[in-house]
Amino acid sequence: MTSSVEPRFLRVHERDNVAIVVNEGGLPAGAKFASGLELCEAVPEVHKVALIDLAEGEAIVRYGVTIGYASRAIARGSWVHEGLMKPPEAPPLDCCPLATAPPAPLAPLEGYTFQGFRNPDGTAGTKNILGISTTVQCVAPTVKHAVERIKAEILPHFPRVDDVVAITHPYGCGVAIDAPGAAIPIRTLRNLALHPNFGGEVLVVSLGCEKLQPVRLMPASELPVLAGEPSVAVLQDAKQGFGEIVANIMTLAEKKLEKLNQRRRVTCPASDLVVGLQCGGSDALSGVTANPAVGFAADLLVRAGATVMFSEVTEVRDAAHLLTARAATPDVARAFVREMAWYDDYLRLGGADRAANPTPGNKQGGLANVVEKAMGSIAKAGSTALVGVAGPGERVTQKGLVFAATPASDFICGTLQLAASMNVHIFTTGRGTPYGLAMAPVIKVSTNSGLKRRWPDLIDVDAGRIATAERTVEEIGWEIFSLVLEVASGRTKVWADHWGLHNEFALFNPGPVT
Amino acid sequence: MTSSVEPRFLRVHERDNVAIVVNEGGLPAGAKFASGLELCEAVPEVHKVALIDLAEGEAIVRYGVTIGYASRAIARGSWVHEGLMKPPEAPPLDCCPLATAPPAPLAPLEGYTFQGFRNPDGTAGTKNILGISTTVQCVAPTVKHAVERIKAEILPHFPRVDDVVAITHPYGCGVAIDAPGAAIPIRTLRNLALHPNFGGEVLVVSLGCEKLQPVRLMPASELPVLAGEPSVAVLQDAKQGFGEIVANIMTLAEKKLEKLNQRRRVTCPASDLVVGLQCGGSDALSGVTANPAVGFAADLLVRAGATVMFSEVTEVRDAAHLLTARAATPDVARAFVREMAWYDDYLRLGGADRAANPTPGNKQGGLANVVEKAMGSIAKAGSTALVGVAGPGERVTQKGLVFAATPASDFICGTLQLAASMNVHIFTTGRGTPYGLAMAPVIKVSTNSGLKRRWPDLIDVDAGRIATAERTVEEIGWEIFSLVLEVASGRTKVWADHWGLHNEFALFNPGPVT
Repeated sequence: MTSSVEPRFLRVHERDNVAIVVNEGGLPAGAKFASGLELCEAVPEVHKVALIDLAEGEAIVRYGVTIGYASRAIARGSWVHEGLMKPPEAPPLDCCPLATAPPAPLAPLEGYTFQGFRNPDGTAGTKNILGISTTVQCVAPTVKHAVERIKAEILPHFPRVDDVVAITHPYGCGVAIDAPGAAIPIRTLRNLALHPNFGGEVLVVSLGCEKLQPVRLMPASELPVLAGEPSVAVLQDAKQGFGEIVANIMTLAEKKLEKLNQRRRVTCPASDLVVGLQCGGSDALSGVTANPAVGFAADLLVRAGATVMFSEVTEVRDAAHLLTARAATPDVARAFVREMAWYDDYLRLGGADRAANPTPGNKQGGLANVVEKAMGSIAKAGSTALVGVAGPGERVTQKGLVFAATPASDFICGTLQLAASMNVHIFTTGRGTPYGLAMAPVIKVSTNSGLKRRWPDLIDVDAGRIATAERTVEEIGWEIFSLVLEVASGRTKVWADHWGLHNEFALFNPGPVT
Repeated sequence: MTSSVEPRFLRVHERDNVAIVVNEGGLPAGAKFASGLELCEAVPEVHKVALIDLAEGEAIVRYGVTIGYASRAIARGSWVHEGLMKPPEAPPLDCCPLATAPPAPLAPLEGYTFQGFRNPDGTAGTKNILGISTTVQCVAPTVKHAVERIKAEILPHFPRVDDVVAITHPYGCGVAIDAPGAAIPIRTLRNLALHPNFGGEVLVVSLGCEKLQPVRLMPASELPVLAGEPSVAVLQDAKQGFGEIVANIMTLAEKKLEKLNQRRRVTCPASDLVVGLQCGGSDALSGVTANPAVGFAADLLVRAGATVMFSEVTEVRDAAHLLTARAATPDVARAFVREMAWYDDYLRLGGADRAANPTPGNKQGGLANVVEKAMGSIAKAGSTALVGVAGPGERVTQKGLVFAATPASDFICGTLQLAASMNVHIFTTGRGTPYGLAMAPVIKVSTNSGLKRRWPDLIDVDAGRIATAERTVEEIGWEIFSLVLEVASGRTKVWADHWGLHNEFALFNPGPVT
C-alpha cells in the first residue's frame, strides 16, 4: 500500500545527494516532498531518491561518503538503485590515517547501576547459568540427553539458577588442530567456558580420545578460574554403559548447581557491562534509525564506563579509514588494520571478497552494496574513540569502545562476542529475524515500525519511530540504554528469552577439517 | 590388569614384521607367545610388537605395506610405537595405477530382502520421517520450537510416522555463497532434503532475506520431487507475530504428516540398500577385527546388488595407489585421484596435511600414524571393484562399491553420506563413541570386546570376538549383514535410536564465511 501521509525522505549528511524514502509502502511517481522535490518514478520504501541531477560517473554520496558512482546520468527525483551504481574500491589499508582524529572523551555518566552476579574474577553476570562445555561433537547427543534430565530432575531444586546451557559444536576432532587457523575456534571455546554468566562453575564433558583434550581446551593456567574440583566428565572412562555416563554428568552438574544457587544479584556499576552490538537483516533505514540510536546508547554506555563492542569485519571494511582515524592511539589503529588485512587474505584465498556480504534481503531493503551497508553498520559504534581491538574469539577486558573482529554471520558474531565476555547483546534488524542467544540476553531493535507491528512479540524496541519523527535518535538511544540496565538486572525479559529462542553456537574455524 | 590367558598377537599379512598384542591390559616384559617370541619390554594392549630384529631405516610392515621406517634399531620382541617410526610419504597421485587390477565380480547373492518404504523416485526408505529443511540458521530456534509442538500435539495422531527431524545448520547466510567452495554445502543441504527416509514430503523453512533462498536450495528442476504443493514456510511473510509463524509451520507439517502416515513397509530387494561405512575413535584392532568384518559384509551387500559407500579422504589417501588399481575403469580411478588432489590442495591452503588426521586416542590405541590408520580404514571397503566416485555432498545412485569423498570428521562424513542417500550406516569404533544419526539408523561395531562389555547398551555388534578367536571375520561379517536387513526393516532398533542419541548435522564448507 502507498501511504496517504505526506511524502518524507531522510537525508543523513549535508553533503548527501541521495536520501531515503521513509513512507510505508514507498511512493508513486509524482509524489512531491515538502522541499519541492518531485519523484519522476515510483520509489520503494527505504530506497534511495536522487536529490540532484547526477552525471554519469558522478559520486553518489550518502552518510557524507561516496557509496558508488552513477553508471549513467540519473535525473533528480529518480530511484537510485544497485543497477545504476558502480561500487567504489575498498579503502587501501596501507594508507589508513592512524589515530589522526581521536574524539575527545565525553563527559562521564555517573550513578548508573544494574543488579548483577559478582564473579570471583571481577566480572559481573547478567544471568545465573550452569554452563556445560564440550570438547567435541561426539558427546553432544549424550550431553543433550543429560541436560534434559538435569532440567527435569535437578534444576527445580535450585530455583536461583536460570538455565542449563550446553555449548555444543562440530569442532574438537576431525579438524587440523595444529593448523594456523585452529587457534581461533579453540580460544573461542575456552573463553565461552569462562563467560561471566557461568560464574566460574563450568562443567566440561569430554569423550576421551578427541584431539581437543580438556587440558588443551582449558589449560592449567585457566583452571583456577574453575572453582570446583572435579569439573570434567570423560565418557570413555565409564565402565558400566550409558546409565553410568549420564549419571556421572548429572552428579557433577548437581555439585555445580549447589554452588551456583548461592549466587545473589548485587548492585553493580554500569561499568561492569560488556555490551556487544550487531545488526542482521539490515535495510537502508538501519543506518538512520536503529543503528544511530544504538550508537547513541553506545556513547552513554562508554560514558558510564562500560565496554561496548562492535564487530563484523566485512561490514566495517569500507569504513576502515574512518575508524583508524578515530583510534585512540596509532597502535590501536594498526591492530585494526591487521584484522582487516587478515580477513582480506582469508576471503581472497576462498575466492571471495567483501562484496560477498550483502544479501538478497539487504538489497530489497534498499542497500545497494557493501559500502552503503558498512556506513550504516558503523553508526552503531557511536562517536567515541576506538580504544581497543580484539581478535576473533579473544576475551575483552578493556573498558570503552572496542572492535571485536568477527565475521558478520549473525551466529558466529554472537558466539564470538560471547567469547569476548559480552553480558548483554543489542541486535538491530530491518527485515526481521527471531534471533536469540542462550548465554546472554539479546535486545532486538527494529529499524522500521512496520516490523514491530508485524512482530510485536519478537522485537523489543521500535527505532522506526525515528523515521516517522515520533521520536528522536537521542530518545530511542536513552530508551535502549535504560532497557540494557533493566535486562541486565533480570527485571525485564527480552522476547527471545520469553519464547526460548536461542540460536546454535557457531564457531569461526578458518582452518581445514580432516 | 594383565590378562592371565595365553599371550596372543595378531599378524595380518605374511609379509608383516610387526603384529598386534591382543591380550586385554597388554603384556609384561618376558611374556612368551606360542611362536616362541618373547617380549623384551611391556607392550600395551593393541600396540605393535617387532617380530624380527629391525635395522635402523628398515621398513616396518603391517597389512603387507610399509607403515613407517625404524628411526633406530629395534630388537625382536620390542614395543614398536610412534616414537620409533618415521612415516612414509603419501603415494604420489600422478603415478597411481589406473584400473590395473580390478577384482573379478563375486557371485551374486540372491533372495535377500528387507521391509522398506518405497518412494516415487524408486529409492527405498528405512524409516518414515517428516523432514524439515532450513535455508539458514536464523530460523533454527523457531523450527526447534515448532518441532517440539508438532511432536507433542500432531505426531501422536500419525502413528506410522517415526519421527520429525529438522536439518539445522550454520550455513545459508553470512557466507560467501558464490565462492567456489559454496557448491558443496548447498548441494549437501539439497540432497539431504531429497533423502529416501523423507519420502519426498520435505518441508522447507526460510527466513526470507537470506542468501540461500529456497529456490537456490531446491531448484525448480528438483521441485517435482517434493510431492506436496505448499512446502515452504517463510518467516518474514508472517504479519501477526510469533504465533502466526509457528502456526504456519505446524499447518504445513500436518499436511505432510497426513501423506507420510499413508506409507507402508513393503518387501524390497537388498539392492535398495545404500549403506555408508565409517570408523571413528579407531585403534590398532580396527584393521584386524571390525573393519575386515564390515568389509566382508560390504562384499555381501555388493553381491546382493546394494550400494556400499566408504569415505574419509584423509584415511584413504595413503592407500590411493591400492584403490586406483582396484577401480573398475580408468575413469573411476581418475575421478578418485581428482578427489584426493583436491583435498591435498585444500589441506595445504590451510597449512595442514593428511598427517593432521590421527587423534591422541588413535595413538593411545596403537595407531602410530595416518598410514597405519588408513590401511586399517580401507579394510571396510571389502574386496570388490571400485565402481564409482562421488564428490562431497553429491547424491549416489550407482550400485556396487562407491567412494563418497568426505572429510573423516565423524559428523561431516555422516551428514555427507546421508546427502548421498545412505539409508543404513555402519560405524566401527575402538575407543568408543555414543554416535548416532537422526535420519538413518547407525549400527555401531566395536573393534574389541572390552568396549562392548563396558558399553553394552551403546555398541550393537562386538567384533572383538575375532581377536579372541571366538568368531571369524566371516561370521561377524554375516552377523552385520543380517543386522543391516533387520534394522533396515525396522524390526531391530539400534542402541543410538533406543536412547535418541543423534549427532548434529555438520556441513563441509570449504568456502569462506563473511
